[in-house]
Amino acid sequence: MQTCRMLVLAMVQISTLAAQSTSKATSKAALAEKALVDDLVAANRVLAHEIRVLDAYGHVSVRSAANPNHYYLSRAISAGMVKTADIIEYDLDSNPLAGSQGDGYLERFIHGEIYKARPDVKAVIHAHSAEMITFAAAGVSLRNMIHTGSFINDGVPVWDARKFGGTADDMLIRNPALGQALARALGSKTAMILFGHGVAVTGNSLATAVSNSYFLNMNARIQLDALRLGALNGGGGQVSYLEREPGAKAPAATPAGAGANNRAWEYWKQRVAAELGR
Amino acid sequence: MQTCRMLVLAMVQISTLAAQSTSKATSKAALAEKALVDDLVAANRVLAHEIRVLDAYGHVSVRSAANPNHYYLSRAISAGMVKTADIIEYDLDSNPLAGSQGDGYLERFIHGEIYKARPDVKAVIHAHSAEMITFAAAGVSLRNMIHTGSFINDGVPVWDARKFGGTADDMLIRNPALGQALARALGSKTAMILFGHGVAVTGNSLATAVSNSYFLNMNARIQLDALRLGALNGGGGQVSYLEREPGAKAPAATPAGAGANNRAWEYWKQRVAAELGR
Amino acid sequence: MQTCRMLVLAMVQISTLAAQSTSKATSKAALAEKALVDDLVAANRVLAHEIRVLDAYGHVSVRSAANPNHYYLSRAISAGMVKTADIIEYDLDSNPLAGSQGDGYLERFIHGEIYKARPDVKAVIHAHSAEMITFAAAGVSLRNMIHTGSFINDGVPVWDARKFGGTADDMLIRNPALGQALARALGSKTAMILFGHGVAVTGNSLATAVSNSYFLNMNARIQLDALRLGALNGGGGQVSYLEREPGAKAPAATPAGAGANNRAWEYWKQRVAAELGR
Amino acid sequence: MQTCRMLVLAMVQISTLAAQSTSKATSKAALAEKALVDDLVAANRVLAHEIRVLDAYGHVSVRSAANPNHYYLSRAISAGMVKTADIIEYDLDSNPLAGSQGDGYLERFIHGEIYKARPDVKAVIHAHSAEMITFAAAGVSLRNMIHTGSFINDGVPVWDARKFGGTADDMLIRNPALGQALARALGSKTAMILFGHGVAVTGNSLATAVSNSYFLNMNARIQLDALRLGALNGGGGQVSYLEREPGAKAPAATPAGAGANNRAWEYWKQRVAAELGR
Repeated sequence: MQTCRMLVLAMVQISTLAAQSTSKATSKAALAEKALVDDLVAANRVLAHEIRVLDAYGHVSVRSAANPNHYYLSRAISAGMVKTADIIEYDLDSNPLAGSQGDGYLERFIHGEIYKARPDVKAVIHAHSAEMITFAAAGVSLRNMIHTGSFINDGVPVWDARKFGGTADDMLIRNPALGQALARALGSKTAMILFGHGVAVTGNSLATAVSNSYFLNMNARIQLDALRLGALNGGGGQVSYLEREPGAKAPAATPAGAGANNRAWEYWKQRVAAELGR
Repeated sequence: MQTCRMLVLAMVQISTLAAQSTSKATSKAALAEKALVDDLVAANRVLAHEIRVLDAYGHVSVRSAANPNHYYLSRAISAGMVKTADIIEYDLDSNPLAGSQGDGYLERFIHGEIYKARPDVKAVIHAHSAEMITFAAAGVSLRNMIHTGSFINDGVPVWDARKFGGTADDMLIRNPALGQALARALGSKTAMILFGHGVAVTGNSLATAVSNSYFLNMNARIQLDALRLGALNGGGGQVSYLEREPGAKAPAATPAGAGANNRAWEYWKQRVAAELGR
Repeated sequence: MQTCRMLVLAMVQISTLAAQSTSKATSKAALAEKALVDDLVAANRVLAHEIRVLDAYGHVSVRSAANPNHYYLSRAISAGMVKTADIIEYDLDSNPLAGSQGDGYLERFIHGEIYKARPDVKAVIHAHSAEMITFAAAGVSLRNMIHTGSFINDGVPVWDARKFGGTADDMLIRNPALGQALARALGSKTAMILFGHGVAVTGNSLATAVSNSYFLNMNARIQLDALRLGALNGGGGQVSYLEREPGAKAPAATPAGAGANNRAWEYWKQRVAAELGR
Repeated sequence: MQTCRMLVLAMVQISTLAAQSTSKATSKAALAEKALVDDLVAANRVLAHEIRVLDAYGHVSVRSAANPNHYYLSRAISAGMVKTADIIEYDLDSNPLAGSQGDGYLERFIHGEIYKARPDVKAVIHAHSAEMITFAAAGVSLRNMIHTGSFINDGVPVWDARKFGGTADDMLIRNPALGQALARALGSKTAMILFGHGVAVTGNSLATAVSNSYFLNMNARIQLDALRLGALNGGGGQVSYLEREPGAKAPAATPAGAGANNRAWEYWKQRVAAELGR
């Protein structure tokens, strides 16, 4: 384990050297980068075992802090078993850096193309959330129900890979062109549903992307139940949404890692610490 | 751990000295107070891990027995990781006592203002229960379904922070004025829904507040399913509620810690004992 | 632990002596009785932790084999923490045998009165199952959906304690008269719903009562979803039930502990063996 | 444990000897066969504890690689407690090989007759999935909702044992004739619902059968919720399914153990490795 971490640290240092000018800065950046990779491993476990946004499928990535034109993503294994040694560094065309070992996820273009199109995005999650597939199949738009889901007021578009060359039998984002079409459809939104497939969720930090994915599923379950309950009440499914006040703008992006998001993140990481030997 | 508990005990003793006249009484009260803080820590874990009323968000407090104008509440971390050393003692204006360490929850005014307005309340829980948000969004009132939910017959009001200066983007109870408006709306009820946000649940003991929060969510799920099933039966959602007999008054408050509540409380505490090293 | 078991064994032997004539028979009966009590402890844990028919509330009993006019039931603690030393031996009037320690459940009359009225019943479970409360509140009758729920074809009546002197505020079966009324309403059925409260489930063995309680809840969930799905299909909630063939009689009672029930029982016991130190 | 594995290995070697000509080939085949049996044990645990397709009931088998006219299936215990020593080797008439110990499942004919009729099938799962029973009871056909459920586009028939000599009281596939009728009804499909009972799911590998059973249940839950949500939206339950493009054929069978199925399989096996002492 320790040996693996040292190797990654070494790899990070080499890649970072090109972008940094002094050894002092490099050393600090390398430590920050190592912490980022550690957090990415934890995020994989949190999404799989603690908040269950991921099952055996799906993946999470984080943009490199030292080199914003690179991102980190596990090799093609289930999130619930990812270790530090499984993390691969990619450029934004989703090519692995020389020296990377193991096969990457076929759908890594989801991550690379979103990072390319959205400099504000620091982390991306691709999940097969049943709640998201349900809303897209029923043709019902997600509306904001909860005080932690303000980003849903910006809209959660639905995107269908079949209209961009995807095949009905697997719907996979298997090449850069599909990834680019997906990123274009996402636009400036936080999250987008992939019809018959799942969801892509972003955040301006790893912690924020993780909590966004959690709140998105929670919001969907509440919306479905509220529509049902409203309909039973004889009101035709009338539901009061938590909309922005007229004329209000979207809130400034949550500072990365701040406040309540950070509180949940620290907790969720603690919950998977034992399985990671931390 | 032991050191932390000793410190809390010392702190409690100092605060208690002002209100007590003899060292004998102080010593007994200090032990009771230490037990109360131990129970508060257990309640945090029970609500998070055993009955899952709290997720990474929300909090639980208990009124000081030695000084009813004080209450105990964790610093701003997730309930599932609260330890004795994290407990802060507050006055009813939600100011921490001198010497407290760590930041408090932004929304601690929910607790302080309810204790101020309701001398009978000994414990308060603020949770983000999906069931509660669902009922408020659908505009359907909770009705009593279960023999352990008699307090629901008194009504569970819905309160909207936006009408009292709260902002639509986070709905937080971030100042005394919002806390006071919330406490006024709660009135003499046991529980109140916060629209788009969650719930505030009270009890005349910590054990009772915990079981009330458990039964409230259970009641909501049963009511939703019964309305659905009644509607499927061709009866327009007709449901038989468990109402008080005509002319009957609300039952006297359950003696703190008595009977079946106490049985569940002892069990739930046992279930989290290992993680607390007890 | 061992000491406790020895004490129970001793207690059983003393109680058994009155009904048996030779020491040889006594010894064999005492061992069987000890195994029965061990199984009752396991049933408590299985119902609480493995199949989740019981939460912190509810209880399970078994009729004594050595003395059919006696039954075993835990003292008043949550099923999930019951140990051998907690088991009390009762007569059919629900009076504890001399020497029993600890308070009994207030509602033990559910057990005693059913055993009195139904010689074929060897085990009784009282649970607060949400599924059962839901069906009673909606006024919909349980119908058989699954091949393991044939007993549901005999009907699952709904009984309301308020019509027999129970109080709306707690609905508890707190005296022999209420227990007798409940047993009369149960008649020859396997299970009966207690309106606003829960369910009473019986079996001709402990294993059968446990699996009956499991299948009853499963059947209810399937029936609710099937009615919903049938209604969505435009068919007005048409559902095909698994009824007996015209003219067919109820199947002979499953031999105690035989076949598939026994398979599940052995598995469920194994799942709680570690927590019981077995 | 080791002793048990050695015995199975020995048994496999003996049975394999008849079909193999050189000791070298035998040795390699025997090792592959041992790995297959190890995987079957893991599949039992995965289905019971990790993806919860099986509860205390139901079973999973795999066709022998060394002798395609044989298959492996546990003796009649719950899947969650199966060990290597519990595996029995059967011929396709579901007769155990000489030397097998322990009673087989009464319903083993489900497995044998499907293997006989379908040379392409390498693994069979029989589960009591509530989702499957629900769809059959409501008379609604499963339709494909998810990109991993393409096989559902081939149709998931519903079969009623009562029309082929099964009894309403248990619906069991207790003889070869019922197994043959079942296999005929399955035809070339991947999965078939058994009315009032459960489901039979196949795969061209153990990993594929396991993931098919997982996706089938997930698809059913999404379809039910999407129909419900579509109906609430005022659209009469309109749902967009993930159908094959007009004129498209079913995809070629997934190569056994390839790609994403394999990724999940490796993960699920890792999740039960500790309980198997691996």
